Amino acid sequence: QSNVQIYGVVDVGYNRSSSSDTGTFKSRNALDSGLQNGSRIGFRGTEDLGNGLKASFVLEYDIGVDTGAGLAGPSRQSFLALSNAYGTVAAGRQYTPQYELVSKVDPFGAGTVGDVTFGKGVYLMGAWAAPGTIRLDNLLAYVSPSFSGFNVIAGYTANGIGDEESPLKAALGNDVKVWAINPNYSNGPLFVGLNYHQVKSEAPLSGGVRDYKDKVWDLGATYDFGMVKLSALYGQLKSTEDGVVDSKTKQWMLGASVPVGSAGAALVSYSRQTTDYGGGWSDEKASKWAVGYTHALSKRTNLYAVYAKIKTNDAADGWYSVENPANNDYTSGLNLGVSHSF
Amino acid sequence: QSNVQIYGVVDVGYNRSSSSDTGTFKSRNALDSGLQNGSRIGFRGTEDLGNGLKASFVLEYDIGVDTGAGLAGPSRQSFLALSNAYGTVAAGRQYTPQYELVSKVDPFGAGTVGDVTFGKGVYLMGAWAAPGTIRLDNLLAYVSPSFSGFNVIAGYTANGIGDEESPLKAALGNDVKVWAINPNYSNGPLFVGLNYHQVKSEAPLSGGVRDYKDKVWDLGATYDFGMVKLSALYGQLKSTEDGVVDSKTKQWMLGASVPVGSAGAALVSYSRQTTDYGGGWSDEKASKWAVGYTHALSKRTNLYAVYAKIKTNDAADGWYSVENPANNDYTSGLNLGVSHSF
Amino acid sequence: QSNVQIYGVVDVGYNRSSSSDTGTFKSRNALDSGLQNGSRIGFRGTEDLGNGLKASFVLEYDIGVDTGAGLAGPSRQSFLALSNAYGTVAAGRQYTPQYELVSKVDPFGAGTVGDVTFGKGVYLMGAWAAPGTIRLDNLLAYVSPSFSGFNVIAGYTANGIGDEESPLKAALGNDVKVWAINPNYSNGPLFVGLNYHQVKSEAPLSGGVRDYKDKVWDLGATYDFGMVKLSALYGQLKSTEDGVVDSKTKQWMLGASVPVGSAGAALVSYSRQTTDYGGGWSDEKASKWAVGYTHALSKRTNLYAVYAKIKTNDAADGWYSVENPANNDYTSGLNLGVSHSF
Repeated sequence: QSNVQIYGVVDVGYNRSSSSDTGTFKSRNALDSGLQNGSRIGFRGTEDLGNGLKASFVLEYDIGVDTGAGLAGPSRQSFLALSNAYGTVAAGRQYTPQYELVSKVDPFGAGTVGDVTFGKGVYLMGAWAAPGTIRLDNLLAYVSPSFSGFNVIAGYTANGIGDEESPLKAALGNDVKVWAINPNYSNGPLFVGLNYHQVKSEAPLSGGVRDYKDKVWDLGATYDFGMVKLSALYGQLKSTEDGVVDSKTKQWMLGASVPVGSAGAALVSYSRQTTDYGGGWSDEKASKWAVGYTHALSKRTNLYAVYAKIKTNDAADGWYSVENPANNDYTSGLNLGVSHSF
Repeated sequence: QSNVQIYGVVDVGYNRSSSSDTGTFKSRNALDSGLQNGSRIGFRGTEDLGNGLKASFVLEYDIGVDTGAGLAGPSRQSFLALSNAYGTVAAGRQYTPQYELVSKVDPFGAGTVGDVTFGKGVYLMGAWAAPGTIRLDNLLAYVSPSFSGFNVIAGYTANGIGDEESPLKAALGNDVKVWAINPNYSNGPLFVGLNYHQVKSEAPLSGGVRDYKDKVWDLGATYDFGMVKLSALYGQLKSTEDGVVDSKTKQWMLGASVPVGSAGAALVSYSRQTTDYGGGWSDEKASKWAVGYTHALSKRTNLYAVYAKIKTNDAADGWYSVENPANNDYTSGLNLGVSHSF
Repeated sequence: QSNVQIYGVVDVGYNRSSSSDTGTFKSRNALDSGLQNGSRIGFRGTEDLGNGLKASFVLEYDIGVDTGAGLAGPSRQSFLALSNAYGTVAAGRQYTPQYELVSKVDPFGAGTVGDVTFGKGVYLMGAWAAPGTIRLDNLLAYVSPSFSGFNVIAGYTANGIGDEESPLKAALGNDVKVWAINPNYSNGPLFVGLNYHQVKSEAPLSGGVRDYKDKVWDLGATYDFGMVKLSALYGQLKSTEDGVVDSKTKQWMLGASVPVGSAGAALVSYSRQTTDYGGGWSDEKASKWAVGYTHALSKRTNLYAVYAKIKTNDAADGWYSVENPANNDYTSGLNLGVSHSF
């Protein structure tokens, strides 16, 4: 049927994680899924409605090739969009404008152990209380057309992390409201993008009493010299909440991608993050470097090899990892794998 | 491949719910999925087996566009069917004959906040102990061919709400057995349908001791005058169980759908329900009116706007809602959205 | 799109289970899903990478037609493979070589109540501590090309039952390591296959202290005389663990399949299993016979009727079942159903 296209990625490889930051864990050697590109199955389609109006949708679900996790969701993306000459309005679960920017600037594309974003890297995303958030529920987004290489993405959600509640009159609201704006400029070899977003919640999100709030901005750029494509990223994240001291994070990344022959690319990045908690607490510092190589067997299939190393100061010990830091605290990681798109 | 067709719906919109019946909740303003037509992904196919025999199947799963709920099930429908000149036998999880009738008569098609069925409306479905049941597990159904506009649907399940148990010799059976019959007549602008079903369980379903039983019938009709299509529905539900007083519900709906131009339709309905619990308890009364407008952008895509209001007497306070009453008790609702089929 | 093919099975039928071995349960009469062939939805594809190299994948999920269970996983199979003239390497969740052998030799194809494998039958699979295991997570497998009818399958997984852990330095590892080798020979009407596998875990798996280990081998053969295809299977399973007595299982099956006309086949099997626990415990003994008939309505759709009966000695009472023995202990079963592939 022509109304829907099925697509996806099957990515599997060898994943070695070692150097437990707190000394708690032995090395982990595993066959893992989605190391470079999240393994997924997706459904998408477009309908021409006439008068320059189009409807389109994306429904995309994570799968786990190694242990067989299925299409239970939450989705990677699920939205309906209407587009015309004045731009696109999309509603549903979508990537944050911040992630769209950062993953475009990161030479590793925010994939593999070389990923700059928190979860495998040190660049905090979304909100201080949930530093790995890259997707928002209930997001209403607007994407402008491109004017001479310039476009804008803007979005708002009444609750970015779950269904909007039926709020009790007698209690603080738990919904996490987010708005974001992301202007971008592309011109030949140059790309520059800015992200600004705010996160707000009445109920406490990080150990305080009420009125949690983040203000976040990120500036990223890439320039393709042909022989090498350079990347730079700088960001700040300020977090406040009644009853806890304010925190302020500064973070940056420098990266490069070098074509090798017609099918290969060498990748490298260095990133750094400092969080100042004020109130006499020590600053938390973390840095990461990553080197990798990717080789295309075809347009749809490629091999990859990436090594990365994280360093933290004492205050940040155990908080960063080349794998999901909720489970462990490995500071050294190696990925060797195959990614196949369909 | 020609053996299977993928289809689905992506429906997303603004949903405002207000007027908490018990005064407990603030208004809810949300981006929600499936307001008019449940967002879904489905797989279906047909095979010609020769000699007039056909095999066919439907496998259809709810998805949540707003927060990304995936294809985990339970399914909306999942069955295998064999058909020939004598009719169709289908086995699996299927809509109740009652829902097939009611959703056909309801001008809102049992979608949006205008929906007449319990869950968003006041018309109790299925059984008194589970008044929103519209699908049955393990259903064996027969659908007759149409003879001069007349056909019959009949069905039986040994357990409509979960897998049939391995019953312990020493305990009451928990399976909920249901049988149903649904004769229909269509002739030009006229449609008339009758539903009768019984629900039985050895183990208590509604606070009693044992031998739960419902007897339910519904009579529905529509007549299309061209300028307007009128709808009428009347039903009764009697519930008995050892150790609890019997209850008796009477319910009805009147509705109309008016074409506006070639792409629009104005919709209106009024419905009412009274449950008599006997034994000195006050009758529970609820009514609902709904108005809406739907506008087709194409055969596959439409916009909708619907407003509805529920009224309850004191005995029914907090029991009905324009949203799922398990979570809240809003009596006033507004839906503005887009539904896209693929 | 040509990069992916959707396929599946919808199998539904009547399932009667009776003769509770311990006398605890009444008979169960149910409409069940996947009696002969597990109901499923799958996605697969192949890409020619040039130079004789191919990439391919399979992503296949169980579904439940009767009660609507969806594609949540764990998958039936999910792997990525690279193939050339020297064979195929596949990585992901896959069937065990043992199951590939046994299901090929079993006249019932390890389906219906006639299934020889533990779960519905008496032939223990995988490990003594998890006697129904037929799939392994994180499996890296190699399948050789066929040389004059001879080929070999070999596989290894660092954890066959879940994601590889981040092992704590201070504790025993919980990963269940498995390696397997499976040489096969096919020549005209003859097929012979051997399976050997080992299962190892540092942490206790069966009530002992540490160092759980299984050594398992199986020898199977079929010969197709045209009028009848005969099957034979013999296997041993030795299990050891510090702190528990060693156990040794011997098991075998004889079976036959007889074509009836151009579309039918009569099936029969008898299987037997004895486990010696040593240390003064009585041997556990179980046997099963099964008879069935399958009739093709087309290449994609068939009807089936199978009856099976299990016998156990006192030591094995309640441990075997024609249904999942985790839930009950029925020794007598009947399946009547339809299986439709798409």
